[in-house]
Amino acid sequence: MAAGTAFIDETAPIRIIVLGATGSIGQSLADLIERSPERFDVVALVANRNARALATMAKRLKASSAVLADASCYQDLAGHLEGTGIAVSAGEAAVLEAVERDADLVVGAIVGAAGLAPTMAAIRPGRRIALANKECLVCAGDLFMAKIRRTGAELLPVDSEHNAIFQVFESERADQVEKVILTASGGPFRTFSTDEMAGVTPEQALKHPNWDMGARITIDSATMMNKGFEVIEASHLFPVSHDQLGVLVHPQSAIHGLVQYKDGSLLAQLGSPDMRTPIAHCLAYPRRMAVPVKRLDLAELGTLTFEAPDPERFPALGLAISAMKAAGAAPAALNAADEIAVDAFLNGKIRFPDIPAAIEAVLERMAGEGRLVACDRLEDVLALDTEARQKTREWIAARHGRA
Amino acid sequence: MAAGTAFIDETAPIRIIVLGATGSIGQSLADLIERSPERFDVVALVANRNARALATMAKRLKASSAVLADASCYQDLAGHLEGTGIAVSAGEAAVLEAVERDADLVVGAIVGAAGLAPTMAAIRPGRRIALANKECLVCAGDLFMAKIRRTGAELLPVDSEHNAIFQVFESERADQVEKVILTASGGPFRTFSTDEMAGVTPEQALKHPNWDMGARITIDSATMMNKGFEVIEASHLFPVSHDQLGVLVHPQSAIHGLVQYKDGSLLAQLGSPDMRTPIAHCLAYPRRMAVPVKRLDLAELGTLTFEAPDPERFPALGLAISAMKAAGAAPAALNAADEIAVDAFLNGKIRFPDIPAAIEAVLERMAGEGRLVACDRLEDVLALDTEARQKTREWIAARHGRA
Repeated sequence: MAAGTAFIDETAPIRIIVLGATGSIGQSLADLIERSPERFDVVALVANRNARALATMAKRLKASSAVLADASCYQDLAGHLEGTGIAVSAGEAAVLEAVERDADLVVGAIVGAAGLAPTMAAIRPGRRIALANKECLVCAGDLFMAKIRRTGAELLPVDSEHNAIFQVFESERADQVEKVILTASGGPFRTFSTDEMAGVTPEQALKHPNWDMGARITIDSATMMNKGFEVIEASHLFPVSHDQLGVLVHPQSAIHGLVQYKDGSLLAQLGSPDMRTPIAHCLAYPRRMAVPVKRLDLAELGTLTFEAPDPERFPALGLAISAMKAAGAAPAALNAADEIAVDAFLNGKIRFPDIPAAIEAVLERMAGEGRLVACDRLEDVLALDTEARQKTREWIAARHGRA
Repeated sequence: MAAGTAFIDETAPIRIIVLGATGSIGQSLADLIERSPERFDVVALVANRNARALATMAKRLKASSAVLADASCYQDLAGHLEGTGIAVSAGEAAVLEAVERDADLVVGAIVGAAGLAPTMAAIRPGRRIALANKECLVCAGDLFMAKIRRTGAELLPVDSEHNAIFQVFESERADQVEKVILTASGGPFRTFSTDEMAGVTPEQALKHPNWDMGARITIDSATMMNKGFEVIEASHLFPVSHDQLGVLVHPQSAIHGLVQYKDGSLLAQLGSPDMRTPIAHCLAYPRRMAVPVKRLDLAELGTLTFEAPDPERFPALGLAISAMKAAGAAPAALNAADEIAVDAFLNGKIRFPDIPAAIEAVLERMAGEGRLVACDRLEDVLALDTEARQKTREWIAARHGRA
């Protein structure tokens, strides 16, 4: 995608709205914007309820407005921004109002299902969406992509693996692609036996080798469900068939993604494990901007290793691929069941191998009940999400009761 | 360079002239053309003196004409092609006449200095040159590139390392590139000490690990002079400064080249060691064509290693970089001296470390004599080449005499 369309006027500042401004992606983004303030015009910064952090960032980035989703935090935010000239609003309606403003680029970095409605509402003609919210594609991929296509908006993936693939995917000629390969660190239990995995503790699982992440994504990384979600996201992001998507275990995480072409060329993007690189790629695309990350030095690194993922020890990956192929609401149910199962593992209610077991049981039950057909509306997706969570809790309670 | 200009009409067959048809690049090219005969119209096949091989290929590819550089082989070629309707000619003038014909793509795959004049003559407006001849850029890079720019012809590199870099070099925005990195296998003596290198035999040096190559390029690979030539070629092919060019030793030769961007992204092309992939890339660019090469399977390969080149044990690389920076005729003298020195090593006249010693001595002498200023004409390049060879022979004779 080297050339791309000149979607954004390269001389005018990029008008930007950030959804999820105070999270980890938002913080990295702010760091980059602050280094090139003349290139960005921050229309709105949206966060959940952290008034102090949002106010500080709004002042740093000279944002036009700051918005909190939690209406009860309005006074707090208004107090922090008094006299700055930065407009303040709060509440769900205020968030939806914020994404209506004129902007070239919306960064969708709200974590979890809370990101669904505002990110979807942000899709508009002539606009670019830099997507860092997993649920938009995993839970509502068909609806999300239909709106992208209908509006002619442009979608850029922020996630390092998808951004890597995007960088070397020649989109004008997708028929020339044979394979899209996501790399996976393999997580902390890459070399564990099935028996060893049965006994792992939340503390062990929370030690992830390469990236600084939240607790859920760290456990998802240990089960490789995280990679399964990424495969589902890739199936929406790139015009390839399910069978063209592959996963390669690569513990050093130097290569973030690869695309294999029919002439035998394999193109890859490599880099240090620093989210500022893919974020900057989305900010500047199709240009590139200078980013002060440590450069990847392969001679210093010395060795890169690769292995095929083991479906026996990492059944979560297979569950995700099955859900992707089943389509409809299966990926949404997968995500909901996983969130509850991971939470139960972290709270000591179930063992590590029970995470995929719970998910598999819930998906089987819901499929049997005919509950995994495609959702036509976002509300239906959210209702199904609630239902899958409830059924996972029931499975865990039953298992827990037996234990 | 993913998008590129649609230099060639994608629906009409590509009219192609092949210089060096019977060599190894020519044979691989013929294999690819034969698999998609409807996509190519072979205007002329040019070889040196192998009438039988050229005639066989001309019939296989339904070429319009077959041309031999050696006029004494005319009758032989005419005999082989009698009654086929394929036009036959021979002699140096016939070669130059062949490149005058209408064609979209000229593949410049003549080996050695013999490729200079015909490849240079093939550069014409609206034409694409797929270059596999080293001397055009190493010995006459300034003249060659000036003609490319003057005519507006398009240059595609066939060599696997340069082709790899070309595939991931975003040419529209060269100012975003920080570094262009050529990978090197390191050759058979990668792990040898200086003392061990002093005693290596031609037989040891001719065992190169990855690619099936001729004797000279195999020795050049063992001294790493080969990589030095490639750095010089890269300095002409890509709009970067000398200091942005780097070499990375990578014994498995899976990654063929890398480009580092200012946002920290490192893009790479990987593949099996099969020249059909880069040749096909040039044939179909900006499309890609199906090539039946073994796909690179990183999980099967398991491990890739990297190290910085050692300037102490591989002084040839440093000599090449100095010649590149000295510019003018230094790279041409470097190439000529290397060819003679390698030949002397293969014939047991000098030891392995004498190869760079001979080259260094000849370049120093010629620089001291003011003989390494830029050449304005191809004839001057060829005269300088002859002079450098002679001076290398003198150095070797003196050394040999003392031994």
